[in-house]
Amino acid sequence: MNRPDFMGLALAEAENAAGRGEVPIGAVLVSGNDVVARAGNRTRELNDATAHAEMLVLREASAKLGAERLGGCDLYVTLEPCTMCAAAISFTRIRRLYFGATDEKGGAVVSGVRFYSAPTCHHVPELYPGIGERAAADLLVRFFRERREP
Amino acid sequence: MNRPDFMGLALAEAENAAGRGEVPIGAVLVSGNDVVARAGNRTRELNDATAHAEMLVLREASAKLGAERLGGCDLYVTLEPCTMCAAAISFTRIRRLYFGATDEKGGAVVSGVRFYSAPTCHHVPELYPGIGERAAADLLVRFFRERREP
Repeated sequence: MNRPDFMGLALAEAENAAGRGEVPIGAVLVSGNDVVARAGNRTRELNDATAHAEMLVLREASAKLGAERLGGCDLYVTLEPCTMCAAAISFTRIRRLYFGATDEKGGAVVSGVRFYSAPTCHHVPELYPGIGERAAADLLVRFFRERREP
Repeated sequence: MNRPDFMGLALAEAENAAGRGEVPIGAVLVSGNDVVARAGNRTRELNDATAHAEMLVLREASAKLGAERLGGCDLYVTLEPCTMCAAAISFTRIRRLYFGATDEKGGAVVSGVRFYSAPTCHHVPELYPGIGERAAADLLVRFFRERREP
């Protein structure tokens, strides 16, 4: 059986976020072939600068599974995680991290502080960059272009 | 009028955290001379690896003030913030960051990735390290010693 298109689900969450006026980034947390949690950015709606899609799915999954650590779980996110989220992904012991577009300005996996290469990082997920990269980047470019030209 | 002892309040939150079996770290978020939010670690209680004291007060303050950004607010925390929290402190635009003990193993301000010196960091708080350092470090040392020798 083919593996479901989890990055496609993450992209759908990113599109929903754009529809709410949020920066279009989406994330899906998976255990085996089951979606445990899915979310888009909600920083504006929740008045919470930490409400990135990744943080929302990590916290929801921990609550559902009753566990601080999500060692068997994989995370799909449309954009390279930022410094905050990269660290949270490490703390929750995510097994595999799939991400779409890279983020030179704010990313922390292959950009910026490259947290997973730091001596203060104590768990490194397996990394699968560039999955669905084009679609994720297009969403972001379109969103910011439309905001500049209302 | 003297400024209230906010680091003393943060230390009290750290002690309360130890009493609940949590790693003893506490944080207090202040606007002017008013405490907006105070918390200790709750990662175990909440089954949430992101429930560090700093994240809890940032989120509570944002909810109370109805604002993603806490530009006029100062944060007191007993230990050097980790990579996740250092980034969250930047995202919420905290004005001044006072912290106690440094954390070579997990810190991200003067240790590790030194996030505030990274090109992907877009807001740097004023930094006041070493405030109440001895008391904060003693609490942590005592906590881990007691866990090793039950």
